[in-house]
Amino acid sequence: MGGEDEVRNKQVVLRQYVTGFPKEEDMAIISTTMKLKLPEGSAGVLVKNLYLSCDPYMRHPMSAGSGTSDYLPKYYPGSPLFGYGVSKVVDSRSSDFKIGDLVWGTTGWEEYSVISSTDRLTKIEDISVPLSYYSGLLGMAGFTAYVGFHEICSPKKGDCVYVSAAAGAVGQLVGQFAKLLGCYVVGSAGSKEKIDLLKNKLGFDEAFNYKEEHDLDATLKRYFPEGIDIYFENVGGPMLDAVLLNMKLHGRISVCGMISQYNLEKPQGIHNLRQVVAKRINIQGFLQSDHFHLYPQFRHLTLRYIKEGKITYVEDIAEGLEAAPAALVGIFKGRNIGKQSVFIARDQV
Amino acid sequence: MGGEDEVRNKQVVLRQYVTGFPKEEDMAIISTTMKLKLPEGSAGVLVKNLYLSCDPYMRHPMSAGSGTSDYLPKYYPGSPLFGYGVSKVVDSRSSDFKIGDLVWGTTGWEEYSVISSTDRLTKIEDISVPLSYYSGLLGMAGFTAYVGFHEICSPKKGDCVYVSAAAGAVGQLVGQFAKLLGCYVVGSAGSKEKIDLLKNKLGFDEAFNYKEEHDLDATLKRYFPEGIDIYFENVGGPMLDAVLLNMKLHGRISVCGMISQYNLEKPQGIHNLRQVVAKRINIQGFLQSDHFHLYPQFRHLTLRYIKEGKITYVEDIAEGLEAAPAALVGIFKGRNIGKQSVFIARDQV
Repeated sequence: MGGEDEVRNKQVVLRQYVTGFPKEEDMAIISTTMKLKLPEGSAGVLVKNLYLSCDPYMRHPMSAGSGTSDYLPKYYPGSPLFGYGVSKVVDSRSSDFKIGDLVWGTTGWEEYSVISSTDRLTKIEDISVPLSYYSGLLGMAGFTAYVGFHEICSPKKGDCVYVSAAAGAVGQLVGQFAKLLGCYVVGSAGSKEKIDLLKNKLGFDEAFNYKEEHDLDATLKRYFPEGIDIYFENVGGPMLDAVLLNMKLHGRISVCGMISQYNLEKPQGIHNLRQVVAKRINIQGFLQSDHFHLYPQFRHLTLRYIKEGKITYVEDIAEGLEAAPAALVGIFKGRNIGKQSVFIARDQV
Repeated sequence: MGGEDEVRNKQVVLRQYVTGFPKEEDMAIISTTMKLKLPEGSAGVLVKNLYLSCDPYMRHPMSAGSGTSDYLPKYYPGSPLFGYGVSKVVDSRSSDFKIGDLVWGTTGWEEYSVISSTDRLTKIEDISVPLSYYSGLLGMAGFTAYVGFHEICSPKKGDCVYVSAAAGAVGQLVGQFAKLLGCYVVGSAGSKEKIDLLKNKLGFDEAFNYKEEHDLDATLKRYFPEGIDIYFENVGGPMLDAVLLNMKLHGRISVCGMISQYNLEKPQGIHNLRQVVAKRINIQGFLQSDHFHLYPQFRHLTLRYIKEGKITYVEDIAEGLEAAPAALVGIFKGRNIGKQSVFIARDQV
């Protein structure tokens, strides 16, 4: 330790497993050091992290006893969190990546990470858009919106589409993909500022603040007098129950997540599943990673939309690794407006 | 009234809308008379009813305020119930049916019925099997099992299949279709007699009495140590919650009905829907009537299986229209063993 080629490596580590809403104190910033060379015999790449993404799924591995599912990282107290991010390759033993490459994929919540398995790392080719976009719009969140809407929901022009958590990373893009296809799109979110954003900047036909609605069933009937063809589910709980009452025959629900339930000891009950039979509803859970062969076509389309000014992307970027715990905690309180990412370092080694 | 060509027409009428479990007293047997000729200007057919089918969905239109859904008959106090049945055409103004034809489809709970719309009436061609089969195995229940399993669940050889209400009209056939395809099949039901039936007569690999199990999650883990590929949902409630914890990745749930919930004022909450994302589960509600173009191929296949002795069909046939209310009430208490039908009259006008 302590040689000339060692650098400081600050990390966000999990202090203890979390119950209920995560708090900043559940994480700690620690300072370690590391060499900027992959250790002898180590595979993969060593990267410098530039942006980290704050995503709702990260709540799951913060709980004790998680990690039984195949799609989640497992967090350990004392070790750094993991998540999606944008990074630059500093050393490589992979034939797919060379020093200086920009990549996005799963990385550590720290300044530098060793990524031994590069399967889920994607090289960034087009840098004419901000690099932060690859921690959201052109990364996991945007691809989730694309897959969940275009692949899972079988959408067609004129469909009535409802998106919850619509001002979030995924929701804002689902709504815009749906508008580009010619759908009627209504979104919900939790503040006046977000509702203004949805209606005035993101092009949603209608939007409402769910916190101001006391009868979600009546609210949905107001916005969808003939019912909902497609519901893009991000929240779960009472919203899902109200949606089930308002689906059209043969309606489709793609389940991306249920953020309203992640911090509850026992999830709220869903009481209206009987509607699934009467209305022949399809409910499909999905993960973008199952559809990754579609990533190139998604990237091509979305880059074109961005350059043609057809997609608006709202980011909420926290500054510096020290700000990461508060940024992550904030998404469960709805504090972020748009995609929550964290800026770690500039694109220079 | 009272001419020579008038006959008695006993009817099972709804006495009042029902709350909670239906009781025999919610229905009444009344005696009316009718002519065995279609009235002047009336379309369709006049039929003599031979068998009536008792089905769980009939609970819905017994409630006040029902009938908003497109797929259900609407019952009115003082008027006869409707349901599936086997009938003989006594008079016809339809070019599709002639006097003497045997048919199955929606008819009244009475001795004779005028069926003005014959769209949902199917002519019975093969009478080498008992006529009662067309009120179940070769009618709505059997076709529901076929569609729900083969069309909705995308089954393949070796899949692990779980069927609830497995000794009922639909469940017993789903299990047998699954065994014929080479699946591992476990069923549940509510009595020792039904469990014996499933294991010893219907060929299920395993079966258990859900009333004797105090931890359904543990029970399912015992029978499906590697998880469930396909769940054929007939019951809802806590069983569905336990199943969600035990589905495999990319598991499929076809929702035929949720009989455990039909008599509750407020349906029980389902708490484990988060599993839908982690496991990419598909939940699909369906109605056989949406797939009726497949009926001929279903009939062809099932008649062949019956004649080859590959399908066993267990019926529970009540005798006479007067026994119909008790038979219908009984299916919500699990009293029937096998498909509950009611014998009304022999095949002779």
